[in-house]
Amino acid sequence: MKHNSASISELKIAYLGGGSREWARKLMFDLTLCPELSGQVALYDIDLDAARLNEQLGNWLQDQPGVVSCWSYEAVSTLQQALNGANFVVISIQPGTLECMAQDIAIAEDYGLFFPVGDTTGTPGLVRGLRAATIYADFAREIAAVCPTAWVINYTNPLTICTRTLTRVEPRLKVFGCCHEVYAVQRMLAGLVNRYLQQPTPPRDEIKINVLGINHFTWIDRAFYQDHDLLAVLRDHIAQPDVLRSYTRAEVESWADWFRSADQVKFELFRRFGILAAAGDRHLVEFLPGFIRSPEELFRWGVIRTPVAWRIARWQAAPQKAHDLMAGRTPLTLTSTGEEGVAQIKALLGLGDLITNVNIENQGQVATLCVPLHAVVETNAHFSRDAVRPIAAGALPTGVQSLIARHVTNQELIIEAALTCDKDLAFQAVFNDPTNRLPLDEAWAMFNRLLGASREYLPGWNID
Amino acid sequence: MKHNSASISELKIAYLGGGSREWARKLMFDLTLCPELSGQVALYDIDLDAARLNEQLGNWLQDQPGVVSCWSYEAVSTLQQALNGANFVVISIQPGTLECMAQDIAIAEDYGLFFPVGDTTGTPGLVRGLRAATIYADFAREIAAVCPTAWVINYTNPLTICTRTLTRVEPRLKVFGCCHEVYAVQRMLAGLVNRYLQQPTPPRDEIKINVLGINHFTWIDRAFYQDHDLLAVLRDHIAQPDVLRSYTRAEVESWADWFRSADQVKFELFRRFGILAAAGDRHLVEFLPGFIRSPEELFRWGVIRTPVAWRIARWQAAPQKAHDLMAGRTPLTLTSTGEEGVAQIKALLGLGDLITNVNIENQGQVATLCVPLHAVVETNAHFSRDAVRPIAAGALPTGVQSLIARHVTNQELIIEAALTCDKDLAFQAVFNDPTNRLPLDEAWAMFNRLLGASREYLPGWNID
Amino acid sequence: MKHNSASISELKIAYLGGGSREWARKLMFDLTLCPELSGQVALYDIDLDAARLNEQLGNWLQDQPGVVSCWSYEAVSTLQQALNGANFVVISIQPGTLECMAQDIAIAEDYGLFFPVGDTTGTPGLVRGLRAATIYADFAREIAAVCPTAWVINYTNPLTICTRTLTRVEPRLKVFGCCHEVYAVQRMLAGLVNRYLQQPTPPRDEIKINVLGINHFTWIDRAFYQDHDLLAVLRDHIAQPDVLRSYTRAEVESWADWFRSADQVKFELFRRFGILAAAGDRHLVEFLPGFIRSPEELFRWGVIRTPVAWRIARWQAAPQKAHDLMAGRTPLTLTSTGEEGVAQIKALLGLGDLITNVNIENQGQVATLCVPLHAVVETNAHFSRDAVRPIAAGALPTGVQSLIARHVTNQELIIEAALTCDKDLAFQAVFNDPTNRLPLDEAWAMFNRLLGASREYLPGWNID
Amino acid sequence: MKHNSASISELKIAYLGGGSREWARKLMFDLTLCPELSGQVALYDIDLDAARLNEQLGNWLQDQPGVVSCWSYEAVSTLQQALNGANFVVISIQPGTLECMAQDIAIAEDYGLFFPVGDTTGTPGLVRGLRAATIYADFAREIAAVCPTAWVINYTNPLTICTRTLTRVEPRLKVFGCCHEVYAVQRMLAGLVNRYLQQPTPPRDEIKINVLGINHFTWIDRAFYQDHDLLAVLRDHIAQPDVLRSYTRAEVESWADWFRSADQVKFELFRRFGILAAAGDRHLVEFLPGFIRSPEELFRWGVIRTPVAWRIARWQAAPQKAHDLMAGRTPLTLTSTGEEGVAQIKALLGLGDLITNVNIENQGQVATLCVPLHAVVETNAHFSRDAVRPIAAGALPTGVQSLIARHVTNQELIIEAALTCDKDLAFQAVFNDPTNRLPLDEAWAMFNRLLGASREYLPGWNID
Repeated sequence: MKHNSASISELKIAYLGGGSREWARKLMFDLTLCPELSGQVALYDIDLDAARLNEQLGNWLQDQPGVVSCWSYEAVSTLQQALNGANFVVISIQPGTLECMAQDIAIAEDYGLFFPVGDTTGTPGLVRGLRAATIYADFAREIAAVCPTAWVINYTNPLTICTRTLTRVEPRLKVFGCCHEVYAVQRMLAGLVNRYLQQPTPPRDEIKINVLGINHFTWIDRAFYQDHDLLAVLRDHIAQPDVLRSYTRAEVESWADWFRSADQVKFELFRRFGILAAAGDRHLVEFLPGFIRSPEELFRWGVIRTPVAWRIARWQAAPQKAHDLMAGRTPLTLTSTGEEGVAQIKALLGLGDLITNVNIENQGQVATLCVPLHAVVETNAHFSRDAVRPIAAGALPTGVQSLIARHVTNQELIIEAALTCDKDLAFQAVFNDPTNRLPLDEAWAMFNRLLGASREYLPGWNID
Repeated sequence: MKHNSASISELKIAYLGGGSREWARKLMFDLTLCPELSGQVALYDIDLDAARLNEQLGNWLQDQPGVVSCWSYEAVSTLQQALNGANFVVISIQPGTLECMAQDIAIAEDYGLFFPVGDTTGTPGLVRGLRAATIYADFAREIAAVCPTAWVINYTNPLTICTRTLTRVEPRLKVFGCCHEVYAVQRMLAGLVNRYLQQPTPPRDEIKINVLGINHFTWIDRAFYQDHDLLAVLRDHIAQPDVLRSYTRAEVESWADWFRSADQVKFELFRRFGILAAAGDRHLVEFLPGFIRSPEELFRWGVIRTPVAWRIARWQAAPQKAHDLMAGRTPLTLTSTGEEGVAQIKALLGLGDLITNVNIENQGQVATLCVPLHAVVETNAHFSRDAVRPIAAGALPTGVQSLIARHVTNQELIIEAALTCDKDLAFQAVFNDPTNRLPLDEAWAMFNRLLGASREYLPGWNID
Repeated sequence: MKHNSASISELKIAYLGGGSREWARKLMFDLTLCPELSGQVALYDIDLDAARLNEQLGNWLQDQPGVVSCWSYEAVSTLQQALNGANFVVISIQPGTLECMAQDIAIAEDYGLFFPVGDTTGTPGLVRGLRAATIYADFAREIAAVCPTAWVINYTNPLTICTRTLTRVEPRLKVFGCCHEVYAVQRMLAGLVNRYLQQPTPPRDEIKINVLGINHFTWIDRAFYQDHDLLAVLRDHIAQPDVLRSYTRAEVESWADWFRSADQVKFELFRRFGILAAAGDRHLVEFLPGFIRSPEELFRWGVIRTPVAWRIARWQAAPQKAHDLMAGRTPLTLTSTGEEGVAQIKALLGLGDLITNVNIENQGQVATLCVPLHAVVETNAHFSRDAVRPIAAGALPTGVQSLIARHVTNQELIIEAALTCDKDLAFQAVFNDPTNRLPLDEAWAMFNRLLGASREYLPGWNID
Repeated sequence: MKHNSASISELKIAYLGGGSREWARKLMFDLTLCPELSGQVALYDIDLDAARLNEQLGNWLQDQPGVVSCWSYEAVSTLQQALNGANFVVISIQPGTLECMAQDIAIAEDYGLFFPVGDTTGTPGLVRGLRAATIYADFAREIAAVCPTAWVINYTNPLTICTRTLTRVEPRLKVFGCCHEVYAVQRMLAGLVNRYLQQPTPPRDEIKINVLGINHFTWIDRAFYQDHDLLAVLRDHIAQPDVLRSYTRAEVESWADWFRSADQVKFELFRRFGILAAAGDRHLVEFLPGFIRSPEELFRWGVIRTPVAWRIARWQAAPQKAHDLMAGRTPLTLTSTGEEGVAQIKALLGLGDLITNVNIENQGQVATLCVPLHAVVETNAHFSRDAVRPIAAGALPTGVQSLIARHVTNQELIIEAALTCDKDLAFQAVFNDPTNRLPLDEAWAMFNRLLGASREYLPGWNID
């Protein structure tokens, strides 16, 4: 790495999950638009072909018009090669396969638990967490051995478990986890500005919020546009007739958008808890009791389950998209992706401070007794030269603390279980999950079927 | 109060709920057998006739053979009269009526939640807690005004909420809550001594245990008879064929004992969490997800629901029992009741130290991050002259901490709600309860019906 | 207050200590240069004439060339008038008189304790703290009654005690304390850049530091200029011959600057504790054992005692300076004072975020067990619309925690003592101060003489 | 070890410092009088001859009239031999030599610090702590390797540092430290009963106290004899004329008792802090600023410095005493020594519970924020079968917390320094000690001379 007056060259980024169709490509695009940085990206993936395709795509990008930086991409076949000399390590992987994810969700459905996403919490998310923590424990040890001073940026879900595993195993690693989930709520609030305040819809980053909680279950206790208190506006909004209402299956299925939701869960939570949840309803229902008991219940709240089959199809179609782009069959549009990874990297290199929300170990930024120090939480933080320092976000209301606390404990249990191959600990997390509706013996049976389906990603486990 | 060399006279005990058919009479009997103490008991009850009957019974007792102490009883018509000059305040009341309790349970059943007891936690227990905390807040203020240095002993359920309300409202009161629930587990363990160690069944108090948790949800992480590790014995026990098994409705109903249980929940918890729950299964299922979803599920685990109708009948029959006793139609047998109230009073008066389990504010005796200081917990404590000092009981396993933590928070929420008439806070506790299986809107509907049924015990509340 | 698109008008600032010769005038000057803000400043002072002079000066300023804002000044005769409708409250007062301060220091000298400043800690600082906390308790109650949502900015020393008293008495007030003490250390480090890195001396705000501790006893555990680790440079610096050395009285007295110091204490602390103290040596020796035992010892370390007589003379000369300015006998130069008050006010009004060091209640930003939550500490914080949120600054080394902890406790004791007129508590702080070299009886005698001298500022105290 | 119905045989006790003239012999005597226990004691000492003399004495004792138990003694030449199969490990050693101790004290005197004892805190105690922690770290590792489930009882000073080092190095060891220092205060209070309450002086154990703090710096916040509040009596006592007074050198030297003190420091502390220190004044002055500045100051308070020369003479005379006893030249009197070691051992073996004061890791028994968890503190504890559980002792007044906190931190610093050979950390403890009156450079010089004198007990240290 070489510091010049206002730019850095010879930077090395190790990308674990370098065959990623989504996050890796977003990073490539944002790097092309950043004149202050140049260097190389090493792409490591257990699917080497996928990494090679990204290598090809990345290097092709360099020659396109509008590119203002200079980066080279190389697919590498070992983790060590990727990490060697890295200044940053970016991780976005699939912990197991999409088929594995399909199994996680299908088995839970056999027991009457219907998860719309299945990658963060609840039975499928926790078992996915076991697989992920197993893989991340290796990453942690390898990074500590090869590039211990590199900054590690995690995008993989379950984001909290992945991020926390790295410092649980190697406490000195410099780690944070990133997620853009809160953007959608900012956009919803921006819409209220237009609807109720007779102003043009502002860009989402002009909606000033205080965020605190855990990833996909963060909360907003303060939201302003200029001098306008948007939580007060929201309170009026949900009191309008027809804002709170039921949905039907037909209505929800007509959306033809697997990621859309109707905010009904969010609004109802706001009524009863007085604070705004900052994730999509598809995620929210997975953190709460009562909602996932049937597909009909979910439809009633305007929540649709994203089919894993659709994810698989999207995944399979992705290489062709890359080929189409490089062959000129699809036009290339170089614009910022809206992600903040490159801005964060710049700030950590001393090229200007940044304040944004991020997932890191709790040092008191969430002043909530039930969230222990070291658990990974999401709040705003101050990024500056070689430092990410969380900004105190205050305390959550007691009722919300309780909603969060059990998930924090479950995440810690899953990591502990993964590191010690302890089936009982992992089961305790599954049983304690608020979506669980089963008595001990049935929950145990379900859990064992899930473990069986993940067998090959849980080496060292004693699985029947 | 007058201290003599090894005895105390002119003691005054205020009994709130002085018409109590159970606890008040137990105290009377145990006082007759305690030669070191004499004085008066003031019986206060909103049912003055019930208090007068106990006055009559207590004074009659004084003249019976075998009585070794000198006590006078007086029913009084105001709280102030009872408290005036009191050295001890004993409280055992019905927060609301038994009909109220019947409603609590019946409404929850309409929503598919079947509570075997309904006096401690879960929807009925929490709403009962609202009523109780409202009453106890008055008690607290009155005691602080009239006899601020008296020791207060609480027996009413929900025991944690009642006990905690007193110091939440008046932090300087000297308060503890008593419960004999753990005795049954000691007796179960004593049975194992006989079955597996070829020894006569020892008395329960020779089973040495370390207890920690919250009332009706305490846990035993160490149990010894002499040098024998009884948790190891238990581990072998449940591995025997036929120990873990299903029950049928017919089998359970044949017991003809509304308080019996089969320990199946306790054993299954022990298998999965590695620690022994110290309350009856009827209570345990009310603290956990999954078990109370149907009467059949409960029967399967050998758990029966105690009918409130039976409680009402028992209550109505109680005065006749007193009259029969005084008229000589039933023989009087003066033996210790096995309760520890009088022993605790003696220790607090400086007549010999005592170690026993008790419910008091957490000062660190439960070394569990999720249980905040000041929440009321149950562990062993050292009783000595004018002091109850808890003994450090160590930490619970993480998975059990999580089971307990949500109840602790809910108890605190209920008390806060009762003190501020805050419907939302109370609802949050109901929604967050692990037995809750309902989405927000249905839980809210159930909660409102319950509030409606308790309307007259919730003055100042805005109930539709 | 009126929000326009990018400016605020009709702002009201209450200035307590509005006759202040230093801080009030700095604020006036900086306000003239801030085009985004306009409004009125109410000047309240127990010396009404001094406030009137500032009123005259402030209003005269408005008509001078170069002024880009519109402010009016008014001296008011009651605290209520000043606070009425205020959006901001700025406080800089003399707690007692300068003669009082002279006594504080002189009495301590009679007992062999020689304080160079005497306004922050040690016997004189703690007794000054008693006077200040008494006055600030009144301020707190009045602000809470009249303008409870105003932001309060404190400049008075002892800064920690003053700032903390406000929220100790009225926990909901929005308060912070400001001090520029760390600037000098940044300038010292900027000098090292020039001396060792062959670069022009950078401006102080390009020296990036992490500051943590308590006011006048903050510490820097990280200091960078661009990519250069300045603590490493400092380590080399003090290893140069002649950097660490003794001073003589003659040498120190020749400086003719009552605020200068030689950094010898700071450098020696850095050698032994491995972390850089961020205040002038004159303050540092007052927080430590061993240095203030004689004037000679202080001279040896290059520390001079600022004579209070000089402060009195400066105070007396100040009105003439104002008159000279207004009469045109002294030319007016309108430039920024380098203070951050106006920038902070702008950020709190939503006109752009700001990160700077500030003194506020500890919410975990100092991750040091010995510093309890709510004690006032100094770290960086993020100023945004109606919020000051501290940024996590990490933990201090254990040895430094211990140096700080006793001062934090003493500050809390002094406030508690002031609020309850408790002589014993206040004495305990004096006895526990690390500069104390006296056994209990002599310390008690000294303390009583000091109380006697402050008698008229300690109403309600029982002083012999 | 063999459990019989009410006794234990084949017990093994490892005695480290088995040549001890004081503690080892007390244990031998108390064991002879305990009919429930029998077994062997392995005596290990770096002075093997001293251990052999104790072996001889112990075995000789077995044949004396009045002995009711059966024990055999053996001096062993390696630590491993001693620990092999041990159920209990008792440690009382001299960390360094008495000559070393003489040096510690003499060097501090050269710098104007006059320590009456010099074995616990202050410069000599902290340097002694460095030597001790170095030795105890080895003990910890060896015990963990050879007899990890044995209970370890420590008597060596500095007691807190020694006890804490064992669990700091091996957290699973079962350890406590014992000291009888508080007995003297109980006896002083018993004297007040006689003087003011017209009753015969009661035995010390009828003075019921609540003790909390750290060893040799514990405090009593509650003391009763029957119903009499002895702190109230003490308050009256010190208000009597002539109770508080100065002493002269001649008066103090006339006592001809090196351990006596006049309680003047204790009484003056009680006046100013409202709580009774529970150690002798000789120890107290070593924990406080101001008293040890000169021999005259100490005499004034009635404190004498115990000459190490006298300790050396006593040590040299001890073997002869043993020989005299065995040869019948001195009569043998078999009575309890008043120490509680054997009673503690019995309780830990399940032969009856015991409550007594003891030094163990803080689990919250001292509810004082400044005393971190895991630091070793002294309070009452409940001894039962294989468990020592501390009893909650409440919080100290803030002013006393502060007095204690700096010592707790210093003890932790010394242990950390010993384990890492870190000269700076150890120096920080010396500089931070409240008795320190020296600026950084002089304190550093003193510290280095002390290290030099301990050179041979600090292997691995870089000492000039």
